[in-house]
Amino acid sequence: MGKILLQSVFHNNKECNILINGTTFYAIDRQFSPAEIDGAEVVDCKGMAIFPAFYNAHTHAAMTLMRGYADDTPLFEWLNNYVWPLEAKLTADDIEIGSRLAVLEMIHSGTVFFADMYWHRERTMKVVEEMGIRAAIGVTISDKLTSPQDFENNFTFLKKHTGESERVSLVVMPHSIYMNTDESFKRSIAVAKAENYIFHTHLSETEKEVVDCQQQFHCTPVELMEKWGALSPNFVGAHCVHLNESEKEILAGTGSTAVVNPCSNLKLGSGIPDIAGLHSKGVNVALGTDGASSNNNLDMHEEMKIAALLGQLQAHSINKIFHKNDILTMATEAGAKAYGLHAGKIEEGYLADCLLVELDNAQMIPCHDYLSNWIYSANTNAIHSVICNGSFVMRNHHVDGEEEILRDAKKRAKEILER
Amino acid sequence: MGKILLQSVFHNNKECNILINGTTFYAIDRQFSPAEIDGAEVVDCKGMAIFPAFYNAHTHAAMTLMRGYADDTPLFEWLNNYVWPLEAKLTADDIEIGSRLAVLEMIHSGTVFFADMYWHRERTMKVVEEMGIRAAIGVTISDKLTSPQDFENNFTFLKKHTGESERVSLVVMPHSIYMNTDESFKRSIAVAKAENYIFHTHLSETEKEVVDCQQQFHCTPVELMEKWGALSPNFVGAHCVHLNESEKEILAGTGSTAVVNPCSNLKLGSGIPDIAGLHSKGVNVALGTDGASSNNNLDMHEEMKIAALLGQLQAHSINKIFHKNDILTMATEAGAKAYGLHAGKIEEGYLADCLLVELDNAQMIPCHDYLSNWIYSANTNAIHSVICNGSFVMRNHHVDGEEEILRDAKKRAKEILER
Repeated sequence: MGKILLQSVFHNNKECNILINGTTFYAIDRQFSPAEIDGAEVVDCKGMAIFPAFYNAHTHAAMTLMRGYADDTPLFEWLNNYVWPLEAKLTADDIEIGSRLAVLEMIHSGTVFFADMYWHRERTMKVVEEMGIRAAIGVTISDKLTSPQDFENNFTFLKKHTGESERVSLVVMPHSIYMNTDESFKRSIAVAKAENYIFHTHLSETEKEVVDCQQQFHCTPVELMEKWGALSPNFVGAHCVHLNESEKEILAGTGSTAVVNPCSNLKLGSGIPDIAGLHSKGVNVALGTDGASSNNNLDMHEEMKIAALLGQLQAHSINKIFHKNDILTMATEAGAKAYGLHAGKIEEGYLADCLLVELDNAQMIPCHDYLSNWIYSANTNAIHSVICNGSFVMRNHHVDGEEEILRDAKKRAKEILER
Repeated sequence: MGKILLQSVFHNNKECNILINGTTFYAIDRQFSPAEIDGAEVVDCKGMAIFPAFYNAHTHAAMTLMRGYADDTPLFEWLNNYVWPLEAKLTADDIEIGSRLAVLEMIHSGTVFFADMYWHRERTMKVVEEMGIRAAIGVTISDKLTSPQDFENNFTFLKKHTGESERVSLVVMPHSIYMNTDESFKRSIAVAKAENYIFHTHLSETEKEVVDCQQQFHCTPVELMEKWGALSPNFVGAHCVHLNESEKEILAGTGSTAVVNPCSNLKLGSGIPDIAGLHSKGVNVALGTDGASSNNNLDMHEEMKIAALLGQLQAHSINKIFHKNDILTMATEAGAKAYGLHAGKIEEGYLADCLLVELDNAQMIPCHDYLSNWIYSANTNAIHSVICNGSFVMRNHHVDGEEEILRDAKKRAKEILER
């Protein structure tokens, strides 16, 4: 890690120079003294724009191994007869291989951070460390699915490994209200509050979840979270499809984050999250891809475009405009903020995470509005290079070791099916 | 044009050989005699899958020149103060340059055919001829917008140029009910019927259009089309967002085609076309990108994924599954069929239009289901080569002359703004 001078890069509608020093943006668009740029790697960025990288605020990374498996099967049959039995066979090695494929796919599509709710977290942590990006890795808590010993291990693991890594944080992630007993869920909240952990859970993804919650607790999921004291700027709820107006206000008022995953919600028939409504009420809205089983990719750019289109339709219906800058923020800064990162903006002092995007791409031409082109027209094809934490993780469309990662994942997915 | 032997290409879940002879698929997956493959160009397709190319059933190609222009402006302000004034400045040369950018973008994203409703058709025809793909070019009729002389010229042009080209057909395209007088619209129908032309028009895109039609004609747009005798297998309606159940049945019963353009409909706030409902009623549903002003690209793969996701949500609500094959058909064969092409399938006797898609792409791995990967996971990044009418129009991600096309479009878009 050292200095990188991005020369003649397109930013805020003009060419400028940007200096990265260590892990942060040192300065944007000014003259540098010889001492400041001494030892810097100079990168000629002529014909390229710089954009914030993506922060994927909700996924299950290693599910890449199940991409497209048994698609076109009705939801409960798909889960019961295909996804869950296959998941039950996954070993720690599988998770490592699946996570590596996931991280490779994310880097190629411009994502430098993901919040991961899955199993064998130590392996995913290892992969993230190796591949140079960031993650908030969950201790995924579900006392209905795991043994009492595993349940306790979550909290031991948290204590032991917190703060070990610069790029990987640990997050308390009870799967959901319905996959935990009250005791388990409340204890998770208590631990997160006492130790100041980010707290992430599935929230109001399906109509059934809301109905069940109302029957059991006589309130909606968001109201339950409020009652149990879970809501705060450290709270990150995934999906948030079925919320009433008052719940949106509660999320906004408590500084909580709603992560919307529109591709997954549409594909699984869960519904359409009210992206424009959440945003207009002042909720911190972030974007996630969900797992590759239900998307079927981890492409945040695609998620951003789909969120933008759905948001536009919703905004029209309340006579508003869903602005480009707000859309970009959802895909970048909002996710970073949710997980406590000072990142997601090309500004002095922010973490040096960014994309270099080719302007000489048919979908980026003409350049009436390069941000509009990026959000609505381009795809990840235009991403030339990716920088995370002040270091290149992809250069000129290539990630070190990618051929091997793809080969291993292909082989392993076949083997799992044959078990 | 000669023979192309696609060797070891992945098709129907196995490697096989496919022979193209002239403009059609000669044979799929069998042994060939030396005489059959004599003189063939042999292409090693190991590691690549073959898929049908895309047929873009509704667009306004040269609007690429306005991509992203004045985005985030309220709809009527956007049209009145930005898009229409800029459109009014477009010359025939501009249309040629914009169409060339459009065709380049379409080839890169796997599209070999588009139905074009725009002006200076002779220039778009020229571009399509040069660049090797197909198009159904409209004589765009709007007597409310054009002079009586121009209105008459449409019909003269049709007579004069029909049948001139192997890959370009002419289509009768009155813009819409609201941009034509009754007389003009009815005459367009009469000409199309008398001369057996395909007939294409905007249909029920916005709620306002439906309300206005009901006020003026005391029936819905589809009912009006039926009353005026426009509906038949030669009828192609674009958008079809606001239809009641009976209108869907009328379209199905008459063999008409509904082209859905979900990206544009969401972005402009028009609504969500009932893709699964139209399909389940037996309507020939095709996909279109609409123009780049309201999408903002011409990427049929993206349109296919968004249509698939919306269709899944709609299908769930009527307890159905929206199958992969049906989704692929909408993006390929249904559009070809609407415009009278025996194309859109990898089958003997079909026009030799196809894509070679890289299987060694992170989003195509693992390969539990390669069609599912193609529809839901991949993007156009994975398209290695494109064949149209038995000839390569893109090889290894490169289209002849693309650098010049991009340069010209960039320059021209700037000049137009300065006029």
